[in-house]
Amino acid sequence: MNKYNHLKTLSRDIRVLRGIHSLLDWDQETYMPSAGTEIRAEQFKVLAGVIHKAKTGPAFTKALGALVNLKNGHTLDKKLPGDKQAALREWYRDYRIAKALPKKFVQDWAELTSKAMHVWRQARQENNFEQFAPSLKKIVDMARKKAEYLGYDEHPYDALLDHYEEGATTKEISPLFKQLRTFITKVLKELARKKVDDSFLFGNFPEEKQIAFGHLILKTIDYDSTRGRLDLSAHPFSAATHPTDSRITTRILPSALMSNISAVLHEAGHGFYEMGLPIEEYGTPLGDALSLGMHESQSRWWETRIGLSTAFWSYFFPLLQKHFKGKFDHISLKQFCQAINKVEPSYIRVEADEVTYGLHVILRYELELALIEGKLNVKELPEAWNAKMQELLGITPPTLTEGCLQDIHWSMGAIGYFPTYTLGNLYCAHLFKTFENTHKEWKKRVGKGEFLFVKDWLRENIHRHGQCYTSKELLKRVTGNPFSAQAYIDYLNEKYLKGTS
Amino acid sequence: MNKYNHLKTLSRDIRVLRGIHSLLDWDQETYMPSAGTEIRAEQFKVLAGVIHKAKTGPAFTKALGALVNLKNGHTLDKKLPGDKQAALREWYRDYRIAKALPKKFVQDWAELTSKAMHVWRQARQENNFEQFAPSLKKIVDMARKKAEYLGYDEHPYDALLDHYEEGATTKEISPLFKQLRTFITKVLKELARKKVDDSFLFGNFPEEKQIAFGHLILKTIDYDSTRGRLDLSAHPFSAATHPTDSRITTRILPSALMSNISAVLHEAGHGFYEMGLPIEEYGTPLGDALSLGMHESQSRWWETRIGLSTAFWSYFFPLLQKHFKGKFDHISLKQFCQAINKVEPSYIRVEADEVTYGLHVILRYELELALIEGKLNVKELPEAWNAKMQELLGITPPTLTEGCLQDIHWSMGAIGYFPTYTLGNLYCAHLFKTFENTHKEWKKRVGKGEFLFVKDWLRENIHRHGQCYTSKELLKRVTGNPFSAQAYIDYLNEKYLKGTS
Repeated sequence: MNKYNHLKTLSRDIRVLRGIHSLLDWDQETYMPSAGTEIRAEQFKVLAGVIHKAKTGPAFTKALGALVNLKNGHTLDKKLPGDKQAALREWYRDYRIAKALPKKFVQDWAELTSKAMHVWRQARQENNFEQFAPSLKKIVDMARKKAEYLGYDEHPYDALLDHYEEGATTKEISPLFKQLRTFITKVLKELARKKVDDSFLFGNFPEEKQIAFGHLILKTIDYDSTRGRLDLSAHPFSAATHPTDSRITTRILPSALMSNISAVLHEAGHGFYEMGLPIEEYGTPLGDALSLGMHESQSRWWETRIGLSTAFWSYFFPLLQKHFKGKFDHISLKQFCQAINKVEPSYIRVEADEVTYGLHVILRYELELALIEGKLNVKELPEAWNAKMQELLGITPPTLTEGCLQDIHWSMGAIGYFPTYTLGNLYCAHLFKTFENTHKEWKKRVGKGEFLFVKDWLRENIHRHGQCYTSKELLKRVTGNPFSAQAYIDYLNEKYLKGTS
Repeated sequence: MNKYNHLKTLSRDIRVLRGIHSLLDWDQETYMPSAGTEIRAEQFKVLAGVIHKAKTGPAFTKALGALVNLKNGHTLDKKLPGDKQAALREWYRDYRIAKALPKKFVQDWAELTSKAMHVWRQARQENNFEQFAPSLKKIVDMARKKAEYLGYDEHPYDALLDHYEEGATTKEISPLFKQLRTFITKVLKELARKKVDDSFLFGNFPEEKQIAFGHLILKTIDYDSTRGRLDLSAHPFSAATHPTDSRITTRILPSALMSNISAVLHEAGHGFYEMGLPIEEYGTPLGDALSLGMHESQSRWWETRIGLSTAFWSYFFPLLQKHFKGKFDHISLKQFCQAINKVEPSYIRVEADEVTYGLHVILRYELELALIEGKLNVKELPEAWNAKMQELLGITPPTLTEGCLQDIHWSMGAIGYFPTYTLGNLYCAHLFKTFENTHKEWKKRVGKGEFLFVKDWLRENIHRHGQCYTSKELLKRVTGNPFSAQAYIDYLNEKYLKGTS
């Protein structure tokens, strides 16, 4: 136990530094003065170097090596209980990844991506891909290098995927996405005839009133404001330094009501996960979120399964009517729910409906594969994007800002990340089925503004376990069924084709 | 040169980490969720450890040792130009101090003080000294230990002083403060008969309007909002991570107009210093501010010499009248300036007038000396405070909140810090005399809302030199005269006794 605690102490320091890193991220996107860009990039670089050194240095290596065979990750102390063995498994995985990447690479990567984010922001604003292309070229080249450093069995993209979602491979994702694409295309065809009026969701919704409504939602669903905050940023995100300091942001479009509400619920879902991790395990893998896919399952849970439900709006719609006086006087709850669930091919992923969302991810996945395989040059990306968009969604974005420049991810170096969004939706549906069976009366309770039981169920079943199980193990453990896309397909099928929500 | 550049590179990384530290400070006082206290203390602890290790580790030791004799600080390369020799002198000083303090001490100190700040905040709010006493006791004990680690010739307090103001000693400060005390007491006696109406400075000044006026001032005096920001905090402060990211805060008392205006000008003075440091020297001592005293000379420059002048208000008073409609319609510029310069013994240091301010510092200096000498126990502090207040200012604070619990400094572990406030006032006056001689028409220009030439003079004469000279050297260099309290005494004498401002 002493050896284990020693490792835990070293690991905790590293976790603390990572928390500082995420605070710098948060600040960069919220309050940092605009001229601070360069020095912030350098801060990331230096801090990434410190973290990398701590993760791979002699002290940590020795402490981990006392408990695990550093060549293959096998435990050296079979008497340790299962949760500690799980922690060792994840520590080893993290160590292996860190060791595989040279410090210089890690630092260059931190600096490059911090700067590229600013270049991308500018390029996006000016609808100018050429401005961003050189940065993206460097990022793709480094991502390829990263894949080589990390190693893979079949496809270099697997190394990148695995970094975000342990164990995920193109071999698993490609057929899954094929199955989804076929299904979504079918749904879209059927829904094409359906006309839904959602014009009342657009108009003039003053910023302060939108922010206030965001706070009202957060308060009602029990997002703890002593342990988090809601701020504004160009792109909504969540930043967790610790279960006691887990912040979220939103974006206000004064002309579009739902953008902020979706973001608040989405990010709150991420925030709940971080706040629900076991504090006493902070610094060990048991105190860290499981994977990006599992994280996304939590955000989509609140954004879509709760936030798009008639149950949720049974409670909130009257409040919304009061809050935005005159805007929804002649709209019924049913009309409102139909409007927020309108399915229609659109350009922007984060504002896509539940059905078409998956196609946006497939588009990025296929382009990323081509970039990593070298089949697509960065400079050809705008064209390839538009062609793929036409192929999948039947539309072509009028600007690059609404096309291949819309996402922050590539500028952050997050290649291999997008598939976790769809995995998140699938995990979410898989889990929700069990939640519904346990809480058959959930719609009634949510309709009364009760949310604690939802959060509690997620904490009990997901959050508190940290990385004790792999994603697939946890999904099986909670639901009793091995993971598949079926629950998600059933959900979309029932909601959008059979019309029960 | 290669050796020098190598040292510069290592030193820059450390400076970057210190910048991150000050960002954490800033966040703690502005936006951090309240439950984040504990983890923030741990972040400070870990980061302080990383910085300390970098400052004293083998890489830095070797790099510094290649240029300086590590036993006595003598240069090993006499051919290096003067500014680089100066940098080496300061690097060595910093190294010597860091080496003298064990890593565990540095980390314990960081954690203790971060936590003590929260305890103090609570205690102050509840007017309860006993709540804070145990933390303060630990801090005094550690400060004594710190003095022993750092070493001193005559008095342990000298070690603490020197940490904030290089070369300062009780031997210099005590007679200086005695001289000031005698003078201030004389001025106070003479002014006792003078009645000034300042009632119109108090009333109802809505928070948003005050903030807007703060921004107006900042814009006019050319505080660059792309490189800084103005936020709110319980206690105004400035936080510099780099010349391109130098933020300030203010505090709004809706019932007192001048609190915010003084704070904005004061902190802008600090901000200007940081923004005016040479960017190309970032990471070397030539890119760092000289001392706390010199820093304070810059803040007091803007707060008092500019911000309390009739010249400043010739420009701003009409704007103030417009901004706070109806509040100052029947007040003349003269009446306004008399009111903001009203001299009267008061409880709170940061809101004290220019004359009595010095007595507040003397009070703290004498109590700190007694604490460090062991002549005063922490538990006797409230009584000692009140007795000293009566002795120096002839008043007794009605509450502890307005007495010994008013300042954040002790909770931060900043013992030996207060004297730098008075040194700042003295440095400021010493420099201002030369500024006035150079810019004889300064009042006229400031009266027209011109401020760039003031900032430029400070940048040219103070900011751009970093730590190239010691405080005393720089004061002599700029003014031609060795430093003394005379300029300050002359200024107060002329303004308050002879009545010319």
